[in-house]
Amino acid sequence: MGNDWLDMVKWNDEGLVPAIARDARDGAILMDACMNRETLSLTATGDRAVYWSRSRRKLWRKGEESGHEQLVSEIRLDCDNDVVMLQVQQHGGIACNTGRRSCFFQRLEGDRRVTVEPVLKDPEAIYDKHPDEDSTGWLP
Amino acid sequence: MGNDWLDMVKWNDEGLVPAIARDARDGAILMDACMNRETLSLTATGDRAVYWSRSRRKLWRKGEESGHEQLVSEIRLDCDNDVVMLQVQQHGGIACNTGRRSCFFQRLEGDRRVTVEPVLKDPEAIYDKHPDEDSTGWLP
Repeated sequence: MGNDWLDMVKWNDEGLVPAIARDARDGAILMDACMNRETLSLTATGDRAVYWSRSRRKLWRKGEESGHEQLVSEIRLDCDNDVVMLQVQQHGGIACNTGRRSCFFQRLEGDRRVTVEPVLKDPEAIYDKHPDEDSTGWLP
Repeated sequence: MGNDWLDMVKWNDEGLVPAIARDARDGAILMDACMNRETLSLTATGDRAVYWSRSRRKLWRKGEESGHEQLVSEIRLDCDNDVVMLQVQQHGGIACNTGRRSCFFQRLEGDRRVTVEPVLKDPEAIYDKHPDEDSTGWLP
């Protein structure tokens, strides 16, 4: 047995698939990152989102530095088996490393990009301290 | 002037960015496709979603064959400028070429993929007839 569906996933040339994280509370799209076979398997068998960091070229347990972990309640695959969607409970209510709830905070208006989501927490405050010291906790 | 923000977009090696389409009614994620500079520009300056079809290697006006066009109400960019999110009104209430509302109809349950969304319209019926003959129309 095991996770046979992992064999169905169409990994790209780098062995990755995009993974969209969606807030289980209201369906807001929080971020879009990447997973390889190992991190998708870890996410599916555990309860926290684990991604692959292309910039750092290493496994990335979301929240390992920021404390902003994602508790995964559902994993879906699209019709082509080449995109993953996670439904998550976002620890601290912040998914973006800019300190905003969502990474999709830039709205296009004509020829301008307008920031439409507030910074909820100074990124310096997020990354300067150990996750265990985080006081925000899980949202109700 | 013009769409200067297009210069900010981080296109991948193929000149593409992923574009997530989200239902403006309730935030459901409908599909995840690709755009190149031309199709993102066409989407931003027009009112319908235009993608780049990797399989057919050509510009893809969503709905040109199925009639299932997407009326775009908002375009967002993520913090890395390498993912686009569209908010759309989905013509006919069907985004997936399987005849389902959303392409994300496979839920992972243990080691199985379970189909959790119904086929709303037989794909043969969708693609056999001209879009102009489509009787479903825009959902209210």
